[in-house]
Amino acid sequence: MQPRKILLTIQYAGADYHGWQIQPGRRTVQGELSDAVTSLVGRKITVHGASRTDAGVSALGQVGLFEILNCPIPTENFLKAINDRLPDDIAITEVSEASSEFDLVGAVTSKLYRYTIYTGKFRPVLDVRHCWHIPEKLNAQAMNTAAQYLVGKHDFKSFASAKDNRDSSVRTILRCDVTASQDDWIYIDVEGDGFLYNMVRNIVGSLVEVGIGRWQPDKMKKVLEVCDRTAAGPIAPPQGLCLMWIKY
Amino acid sequence: MQPRKILLTIQYAGADYHGWQIQPGRRTVQGELSDAVTSLVGRKITVHGASRTDAGVSALGQVGLFEILNCPIPTENFLKAINDRLPDDIAITEVSEASSEFDLVGAVTSKLYRYTIYTGKFRPVLDVRHCWHIPEKLNAQAMNTAAQYLVGKHDFKSFASAKDNRDSSVRTILRCDVTASQDDWIYIDVEGDGFLYNMVRNIVGSLVEVGIGRWQPDKMKKVLEVCDRTAAGPIAPPQGLCLMWIKY
Repeated sequence: MQPRKILLTIQYAGADYHGWQIQPGRRTVQGELSDAVTSLVGRKITVHGASRTDAGVSALGQVGLFEILNCPIPTENFLKAINDRLPDDIAITEVSEASSEFDLVGAVTSKLYRYTIYTGKFRPVLDVRHCWHIPEKLNAQAMNTAAQYLVGKHDFKSFASAKDNRDSSVRTILRCDVTASQDDWIYIDVEGDGFLYNMVRNIVGSLVEVGIGRWQPDKMKKVLEVCDRTAAGPIAPPQGLCLMWIKY
Repeated sequence: MQPRKILLTIQYAGADYHGWQIQPGRRTVQGELSDAVTSLVGRKITVHGASRTDAGVSALGQVGLFEILNCPIPTENFLKAINDRLPDDIAITEVSEASSEFDLVGAVTSKLYRYTIYTGKFRPVLDVRHCWHIPEKLNAQAMNTAAQYLVGKHDFKSFASAKDNRDSSVRTILRCDVTASQDDWIYIDVEGDGFLYNMVRNIVGSLVEVGIGRWQPDKMKKVLEVCDRTAAGPIAPPQGLCLMWIKY
């Protein structure tokens, strides 16, 4: 008999976690989720994630999966039962059953990350755990112009952190939009078919160089083309990053 | 020589604090502020607050004051210098010098508290530390109708917690407005010339009884008139409450 594959849509605030992935002695999102399901079904379960978010990074649409054999709980009952066992800053918003061939990581077609910047004078005390506070005016229009150079299929080596050791650094960015609200918030939405390690945060750090006027927008094109990890701007801090959704 | 009275407008996220007031061995907002000013000026300073907010309660417009003698720091320099010494979830947004007769508590003419409720199905993981999550539809119009019975000068004994032992429980509510956003947020704004202990949270708990349909709006009038602490609804949790401003 095949185990059932239970698919979860997961939201979490990253501030109080050492990232997604289980690490001994540290509070992680995967650890909390696996403990919740383990306590529900009465045997050791590991919840796998489609995306390994770093410490401090949040998610409104992470996708997780666990396998289970001989469990009488109907799929639709998992939602409330797991939520009841999770801390307040993690929530399951959807549960479904995947087919036995479903490939959680390999079948991803695209993901959207949103990076949030606050440019008001004072740190936003109620939101400071989920944004990057840059207390100066940023030129969002110039940032958006720069962002368009990234759209398409490119070698993104310039925006990978050194820790990334995957074979290919070619990825496709489907869109990269910088929008400003009237009240000092800037959102950077990056959709891609995959991302190198720290790629979104390195892109954001470079766009901020444009926003503060240190770089002209077309410098982004040159940085991309040079394929050199030292060419990009400084990496943006993790707390502004949020995984919005994953498409299959 | 008279000491200078330095007046501060203070914002904080209450989630990680045991309230405003200094308590030995506990992290409090007053403690953090007093430590910041003490480290800046090099002598022991206590920052006094216009309002003692409870554990978990936030503020966007608390007012604080400290006195200092023989200090060469110009008033306008305190803002950045204190902010640099505060944790990320506390910020000073204004500094000014008050006259020697200024009465921080006695001269208050009104205060506005905002209480935030989220009625969406799933707990809002990014905001869960600053709202009350009630996962059902609330009738905001009925709540607003009920709220209007509270406006005016009344004896609010029914909405005081037992711990309140002030002589008079008569206060004036200048407005009490319940508004609903399109995306499942409800805001309850209560402006008054003063508040009894837990008064706003007891009012909110009662308004929620109306919102879920357990009380008719005009029950609020009867609860107010009976002047009985056991008549009100259950107290709302602290994390939805925020002190928005204080007027002098």
